[in-house]
Amino acid sequence: MSMRPETIDGVYLCDTLDLERLFAPTLAQLPNLRMFRPEGVPDDADVRLAIAYRPRQGAFQAFPDLELVQSIAAGVDGILADRSLPPDVPVARVRDPEQASIMAGFAAWHVVWHHRNMRHYLDAARRGEWSRVSFNGLRAPSSTVVGVLGYGTMGRAVARALAGLGFDVRAASLFAHDEETAVCLLSGPDAPRRLAIESDILINLLPLTADTRGLIDADFLASMPQGSALIQLARGEHLDEVALLEALDRGHLSGASLDVFATEPLPPDHPFWTHPLVVVTPHEASVLPASAVAKALRDSLEDLRAGRTPRTAVDRRKGY
Amino acid sequence: MSMRPETIDGVYLCDTLDLERLFAPTLAQLPNLRMFRPEGVPDDADVRLAIAYRPRQGAFQAFPDLELVQSIAAGVDGILADRSLPPDVPVARVRDPEQASIMAGFAAWHVVWHHRNMRHYLDAARRGEWSRVSFNGLRAPSSTVVGVLGYGTMGRAVARALAGLGFDVRAASLFAHDEETAVCLLSGPDAPRRLAIESDILINLLPLTADTRGLIDADFLASMPQGSALIQLARGEHLDEVALLEALDRGHLSGASLDVFATEPLPPDHPFWTHPLVVVTPHEASVLPASAVAKALRDSLEDLRAGRTPRTAVDRRKGY
Repeated sequence: MSMRPETIDGVYLCDTLDLERLFAPTLAQLPNLRMFRPEGVPDDADVRLAIAYRPRQGAFQAFPDLELVQSIAAGVDGILADRSLPPDVPVARVRDPEQASIMAGFAAWHVVWHHRNMRHYLDAARRGEWSRVSFNGLRAPSSTVVGVLGYGTMGRAVARALAGLGFDVRAASLFAHDEETAVCLLSGPDAPRRLAIESDILINLLPLTADTRGLIDADFLASMPQGSALIQLARGEHLDEVALLEALDRGHLSGASLDVFATEPLPPDHPFWTHPLVVVTPHEASVLPASAVAKALRDSLEDLRAGRTPRTAVDRRKGY
Repeated sequence: MSMRPETIDGVYLCDTLDLERLFAPTLAQLPNLRMFRPEGVPDDADVRLAIAYRPRQGAFQAFPDLELVQSIAAGVDGILADRSLPPDVPVARVRDPEQASIMAGFAAWHVVWHHRNMRHYLDAARRGEWSRVSFNGLRAPSSTVVGVLGYGTMGRAVARALAGLGFDVRAASLFAHDEETAVCLLSGPDAPRRLAIESDILINLLPLTADTRGLIDADFLASMPQGSALIQLARGEHLDEVALLEALDRGHLSGASLDVFATEPLPPDHPFWTHPLVVVTPHEASVLPASAVAKALRDSLEDLRAGRTPRTAVDRRKGY
């Protein structure tokens, strides 16, 4: 499993983004590395590295001698779902504090959007209307429960940032943590469901696994408080989109911010685009600087060359 | 200057808000206090308390025996500007951590609005368009300088919150501080101008005084970096509105968030309303829970009854 120090051939595997265009200029600065698009690889048998994100099903088939799959993202569900992925190859992800900050800012924006009803201001401005809604009608941040589903690199950064804005932040982790936490933390497989019940604003940052797929269904949404809002920043497959539309339309939820979808890009005729209670963004809640991907790859290669498991390798059984 | 414990008559003085409607239900819970609108006061000579915000010019004239003016807000410029204000009456303001959190959330929303170009997403959604702008084109938060003008209760809360989102936060205080600060702090009368030069996003939270009136003029705006953005949350009188429009229209500034204006309500035909680079909100960046005003008043009365200066009394000479 240890890599030889000579030049490594690698391949970009992604069905939805042009990884070559995004990362080649930065990765060119790494020594002893030659990266190719799949169709440009000189010899498939020489490819020991794949840089991947949502690969086309079967994409790994052509490369039997992979020693590392480096995700360009925090989530690896698209890679693990590919049945052509060799069973023992380490899959490393990116865990970048800058990316977590970017996610925290995006999450904070949507929390304030719902807490302060910012859409009202934008709509009123379009009509040239000075229309106050907060004066004497605003729920205090300290009385507003913001639930954060998932307590990894992202969840921690988001929870900390929102606590800094004075909200009553509570987080849910699928597994118990034995560390001290800055926020109230529920844990265990049922923690997300328990947290949903008490959250005025609920942010989903869970990894997509067999256990979390479809978690946010009609029952889950019905358990959320009347007038609460959902911020979906993890994976489209977590959510029953029809159930969400129903919960919004019958007035149970007051709004939703959606960055991820069952089908991406979200089809132009999807009702989410124009729903008055929904904000759609194009899966850009957090973006990774190319430099962070380059750093993650450098770390992964260094670990492999030293005979160690890459420091950000996922537990393939758990799925993250 | 010490108040007798028996029942106190007080009057609401405000030209822009119906303070009676906003605060009477909460203040009714304070013992030994009778509050009136100016026209309903039984005997002007018995009025020892005014609860005030932007009073009509000359409003204090009728009440010669005031012992306390309690502002319902953090800023007291509107009260101090009234020439009928008796020279020696203490003017107390509100300093509330919940209000500071509300301001911090609002400021964070606008910082992310400019940093992430959130308007692009809202516009694209209206067209049903999956349009990515951040991928590989986002300035890292840690390389984005957010300047905070003013380092009082509000400025500190905003600076701390934005540092928690990973931004390079720097603050400017008109006076030197000898305490430890969580962020890089410039101080002195020229600090705001020095900070403007290096701020990608600049947030104004200064008090309105003779020194800060008109501070953000054409020269000030020209000194800001190309493509920077202004977030105006303090007082309209800080800003030369025509100079701002010019700076936006010639492409020097990339955007502005404006919550306060020279004339409020902002007139329906003002160009800010529909300017594509401006977000207008109706002076609601921070709102005070009525309970916070009641608490501030209770504290002020307690201090006066004990013969002390109210703990949140402003320095009338400095203006805040």
